Amino acid sequence: MASAKPDGVAAQDFAWEPWCQQHLAAVEAALDRWVCLADAPGLRQPAQLIDAMRYAVLDGGKRLRPLLVLAAFEATGGADAGRTAALRAACAVELIHAYSLVHDDLPCMDNDVLRRGKPTVHVQFGEAGALLAGDALQALAFEFLTPQDGSVAPATQARLCGLLARAAGSAGMAGGQAIDLAAVGQALNEDALRDMHQRKTGALLAGSVLMGAHCGAPSETALAALSDYGRAIGLAFQVVDDILDVTADSATLGKTAGKDADQDKPTYVSLMGLERSRAYAQELLNQATLALERSTLDDTRALRALALRVVHRVN
Amino acid sequence: MASAKPDGVAAQDFAWEPWCQQHLAAVEAALDRWVCLADAPGLRQPAQLIDAMRYAVLDGGKRLRPLLVLAAFEATGGADAGRTAALRAACAVELIHAYSLVHDDLPCMDNDVLRRGKPTVHVQFGEAGALLAGDALQALAFEFLTPQDGSVAPATQARLCGLLARAAGSAGMAGGQAIDLAAVGQALNEDALRDMHQRKTGALLAGSVLMGAHCGAPSETALAALSDYGRAIGLAFQVVDDILDVTADSATLGKTAGKDADQDKPTYVSLMGLERSRAYAQELLNQATLALERSTLDDTRALRALALRVVHRVN
Repeated sequence: MASAKPDGVAAQDFAWEPWCQQHLAAVEAALDRWVCLADAPGLRQPAQLIDAMRYAVLDGGKRLRPLLVLAAFEATGGADAGRTAALRAACAVELIHAYSLVHDDLPCMDNDVLRRGKPTVHVQFGEAGALLAGDALQALAFEFLTPQDGSVAPATQARLCGLLARAAGSAGMAGGQAIDLAAVGQALNEDALRDMHQRKTGALLAGSVLMGAHCGAPSETALAALSDYGRAIGLAFQVVDDILDVTADSATLGKTAGKDADQDKPTYVSLMGLERSRAYAQELLNQATLALERSTLDDTRALRALALRVVHRVN
Repeated sequence: MASAKPDGVAAQDFAWEPWCQQHLAAVEAALDRWVCLADAPGLRQPAQLIDAMRYAVLDGGKRLRPLLVLAAFEATGGADAGRTAALRAACAVELIHAYSLVHDDLPCMDNDVLRRGKPTVHVQFGEAGALLAGDALQALAFEFLTPQDGSVAPATQARLCGLLARAAGSAGMAGGQAIDLAAVGQALNEDALRDMHQRKTGALLAGSVLMGAHCGAPSETALAALSDYGRAIGLAFQVVDDILDVTADSATLGKTAGKDADQDKPTYVSLMGLERSRAYAQELLNQATLALERSTLDDTRALRALALRVVHRVN
């Protein structure tokens, strides 16, 4: 993320780098602290499981989803009372993202050996170890959202669990991956491709925005606009992913480039070509920006900067 | 469950069969209705994923965990206000159980082709399909606990999500499976074996009891006693599992018998022999019964009957 150059208004009036560094540091520290403190004292530690979980999560990911949570939280008020909830939500969405990568990389799925420039979890810990680490990371996300120390109001816990479960499940990410699996070698029309991507990647990105907003105090107008913003950048992320799979090399991506074509997967590039895909990503960025203007929120600069980075990222 | 003969007090003063049939029917109907309604209308259905999820869940399991939820709920008050929560919790624990079986049967884990007398999910739907179905079932469990229709109080939603996540995650079921995986070919002492089993099977069984209780109105005394009850029957379940793996045949079990020894797994039978394992199961049953007496609850007959069935089951 940091390597992409920002453009437009946000770069001029918003100090992106300090904002980003400060919030990244908070997320990294929280993940390092909380993965995994869940174990009951006195019990034998499943040490290898926890090693695999930490390996999967604490690996220098871009943390786009946590940053979206925190930016949406701050845009919708950001009162101190909600900050713990927002940080927990930020970490929880990253755990769901991390588990999905671990399972996606397994031999029975994408069979990928390289992720963020490192051996994938199953290469490092075996297939069974990777399977269990992914399963435990999903559960841990919901542990994060339900602290027992009174730091997050029960109603907020319930709301966040509901949003995350729906973003991750059969109507969201897992459903999108299943459609993706069934679509290999098939020609999808644009509606079907958009639907697949909106679930597979978009649901968790859009969910991140809504979870962050619900830790603040959003108006109905703001929630509706942020929902539109989340949907637009969620889809934009995947369009750009399809573009980068064709245009970037594996070293820059930190994962195997060109694998969509190798696996004969339908993508925006295969459907509409490179130039129209780029134009579509730009259009989605415009939609996201317009949604932020509609939100009537005072300060959406971090959200605007994140949208720019989604579309202009190089990896 | 129905084939095991009850004994003792419960058989004389409690109409187990009608209770069981009535509650099983409610659980089956709810699972059939709710797996999977999560999809947003208008979106493309991940039909094969939902088929695999339904295949994994709607297959005549014994539903021990849902019955524990409902029995604990009724023992702790059972007021109408909590009944929807209890039914949702009952289904949610069954989804977690079902997902764990789907992943456990995968080639990289136990590599089992038979479950409840049917081909396992990956045999029927492929490995990737089974992986995703398990992942989506875990998410769906938390969707069940967070209905958006006002039927379950937010504080109850939060409590149930927290209990379920901890029962399923690295401190519970997934952690126990990881220890199990690392223990193949190793001799464990009794403490280590008990710890492994308490997580792997016991955590979700004990969690079921507590989730049911939290849908009612339990006193602190009742909660503590039910916690002891849940721990005792959770461990008893696994001791009996170890016994049945040696003494029952595959047709009765509905899964491959003798696989613990084939896989050189530490079990209670390998550690203490068959007769001492049976005596230990009986001792745990006594502990569970004493805990119910300590609970000061008016009517724990269904919980008592379930404990008997855990220990005296034949499959």
